[in-house]
Amino acid sequence: MKKLLDDPADAVVDSLAGFALAHGDLVEVHPDPVHVTRAGGPVRGKVGLVSGGGSGHEPLHAGFVGAGMLDAAVPGAVFTSPTPDQILPAIQAADGGAGVLTIVKNYTGDVLNFETAVELAEAEGVEVTSVLVNDDVAVEDSLYTAGRRGVAGTVLVEKIAGAAADRGDDLAGVAAVAERVVANVRSMGVALTACTVPHVGRPSFDLADDEAEIGIGIHGEPGRHRIRMAPAAEITQRLLDPVVEDLGLAAGERVLLLVNGMGGTPLSELYVVYGRARGLLEEHGVSVSRSLVGNYVTSLEMQGASVTVLRLDDELEQLWDAPVATAALHW
Amino acid sequence: MKKLLDDPADAVVDSLAGFALAHGDLVEVHPDPVHVTRAGGPVRGKVGLVSGGGSGHEPLHAGFVGAGMLDAAVPGAVFTSPTPDQILPAIQAADGGAGVLTIVKNYTGDVLNFETAVELAEAEGVEVTSVLVNDDVAVEDSLYTAGRRGVAGTVLVEKIAGAAADRGDDLAGVAAVAERVVANVRSMGVALTACTVPHVGRPSFDLADDEAEIGIGIHGEPGRHRIRMAPAAEITQRLLDPVVEDLGLAAGERVLLLVNGMGGTPLSELYVVYGRARGLLEEHGVSVSRSLVGNYVTSLEMQGASVTVLRLDDELEQLWDAPVATAALHW
Repeated sequence: MKKLLDDPADAVVDSLAGFALAHGDLVEVHPDPVHVTRAGGPVRGKVGLVSGGGSGHEPLHAGFVGAGMLDAAVPGAVFTSPTPDQILPAIQAADGGAGVLTIVKNYTGDVLNFETAVELAEAEGVEVTSVLVNDDVAVEDSLYTAGRRGVAGTVLVEKIAGAAADRGDDLAGVAAVAERVVANVRSMGVALTACTVPHVGRPSFDLADDEAEIGIGIHGEPGRHRIRMAPAAEITQRLLDPVVEDLGLAAGERVLLLVNGMGGTPLSELYVVYGRARGLLEEHGVSVSRSLVGNYVTSLEMQGASVTVLRLDDELEQLWDAPVATAALHW
Repeated sequence: MKKLLDDPADAVVDSLAGFALAHGDLVEVHPDPVHVTRAGGPVRGKVGLVSGGGSGHEPLHAGFVGAGMLDAAVPGAVFTSPTPDQILPAIQAADGGAGVLTIVKNYTGDVLNFETAVELAEAEGVEVTSVLVNDDVAVEDSLYTAGRRGVAGTVLVEKIAGAAADRGDDLAGVAAVAERVVANVRSMGVALTACTVPHVGRPSFDLADDEAEIGIGIHGEPGRHRIRMAPAAEITQRLLDPVVEDLGLAAGERVLLLVNGMGGTPLSELYVVYGRARGLLEEHGVSVSRSLVGNYVTSLEMQGASVTVLRLDDELEQLWDAPVATAALHW
C-alpha cells in the first residue's frame, strides 16, 4: 500500500487537521467527537443542514460545509458510519432556531445512527427532518444497504437544499425541495480499479487487468456485472441507459449532468465521459442545461467514474445557480 | 492500460470536446489548429494572457481560461509541446489591443515553439512579452529542459498575472507582476506510481512497490533520488526543505502554500501533506496566509503530490484574492 499518510489509523484525523488549517475561513473541525461546522456558527433564523457518512469519499461531506450548502458535516472512519455521539453535536451546532434538515445517504449504518442522533436532538428541543438519498440505480439491497444506495446525487441534494435554506424557506419547505431532488436524481458508476482502505492495507476487491465493474458502489460493493474493458462510449452508455430509463426521461426535458470521478481517474477522462453522456442524452431529445465534472464523491484512489442525471425545472435550476462558498464548490 | 477513452489517439480532442460542452459559458474550443479561447472574445483594452503546453496536466491550462485568469490556452498532444501554428491564433485571439503576455513552462519544446509563434504574432502587429516559469527546485537540466522545469507554480503565475491584467495594468506591468511571482515561487514533487500516456499504452517508468521518486517531473522525468516508501511527514519534509532553502525564507515572512495532486492521489491525502507542510513552515517561523489544495497540475493518473510555496506581499495577496471565474478556479 502506497499512500501519503503517517499512521494509517490516523488517516481521517490527520486529513481533517490539514483541512481545518487550509480552510479556517470556512470551517471549524471539532476533534472530540469528530465533526465539522461552518465557521462563525449557525445562521440565526436559517434552517440548518447536516450531512455525514464514512470518510474516504472526499470532498464529500466536509468539503461542502459553507455558505449556501451545509452547516455541519460528520465524517466517520473510512467507509464506516459516523456514530450518534458525533452526529448529535453537529445537529445542535447547525440549529439557528429554524430547525435542522439531515441529509443521509442510504446505508443501513448511516440511517440507524442518524435516527438515533435525531431522537436525541429532538429530546433536547431541536426540530429535525431527515431526507434519505438513494440515487444509485445499479442494484437493490446491496452490501450495507436495504434498497438503493446513495451516491453522487447527494452533492446535488446538498447544494439545492442549501440554496433553499439560504433564501429563507422554512424546514418543511427545505425538506420538500430536498425530496424533490431525490425524486428526480439517478446515478450509476463504474470501477476500473479497486481501492485500499488505509487501516486494511490491501485492495477491497479484485478486478482483472482487462475488467471493469459496472454499477460499482462507492465502497467497492458489487455492481451489476463485470465486463471486458471497453471504450468510453460503450461504458458511458451502460451507465447512462439505466439512469435515463429509471428517471423516465422524455424528449424535451432538461437536466443537470454530473460526471463524477472516483478519485484516481484523470479529469481529462471525465470530460470524455461527459461528452459521450451528453451526446446520448441529446439523442433522447434531452437537453443539458447545467453541468458538473470533477471528483466530488470519491472512493479513495479508485479509478472510475459515475454519471448522475437530475431532472431540472426553473426553480431547481435557480437554486443550483445560487451562490455557494465551500472548499469544494464555489461560485 | 485501463482508461475511460475511446481511440487513445483522440484522447485530447475527445476530452476538449467534452470540456467545451461542459463550459460553453466560459470557453470556446477551436478544433483546427487546436486552441481554447475565452467565450466572448478578448476584453478591449485589457492585456491578454496566453499559456499552453502538453496535455495530460489537466486542469492546466484550459481549466484556467476565464475572467481573472487566462484569455487563451494551447493544449498540445499528451506530454508534447503545442506547435507554433496552434499558439499563433491563441495569441491573436487574446489580443484586446493592449498586448499579450505568454506564460511558458520551461521545457525546451514549449520555449522554442512559443518563441516562433511570438515572432509571427509580432510580425502581424501584436505586442507580446513572455515570462518563463521554472519553479521546480528538484533538478537542473532535466529530460526536455535546460535549467529548471516549470511545474505547479504556473497556476499561481497565471492567477496573479490575470488579476493584474484585470485591474488594468499595462503589458509591462502585468509582465513585472508575473516575473515577481516567478522569482518568489518554488516547488518540488513526489511520485508514488508512474502514469501511462494513452497512445503509448504502458507506464512511462518503473517504480517498485516499496519506492517513491522524490523530485519527479510532471512528465515522469527523473527526480533527485528514489527512497523506500516513507510516512507523509518524512516525504513532505523531503519536498519542503529544498523549497524553503532555495527561496531563502526567513522567520516572519508569509507565504501561499499549494499542495497539488498529481491526478491519482485522493484529496484526503493531499490534506495530510498540507498539514505537515504547514507545520514545518511554522517551525521556520513562516506563516501561511493563503492556501490551495487539490489537483491543478497533474500527470494523468500518477499518484503523488507536489508542494509549492510562494512568498507573499500585500500586493500579491490582493491579486490572489481578486475574483476569478474559470472551470478549475472560481471565487
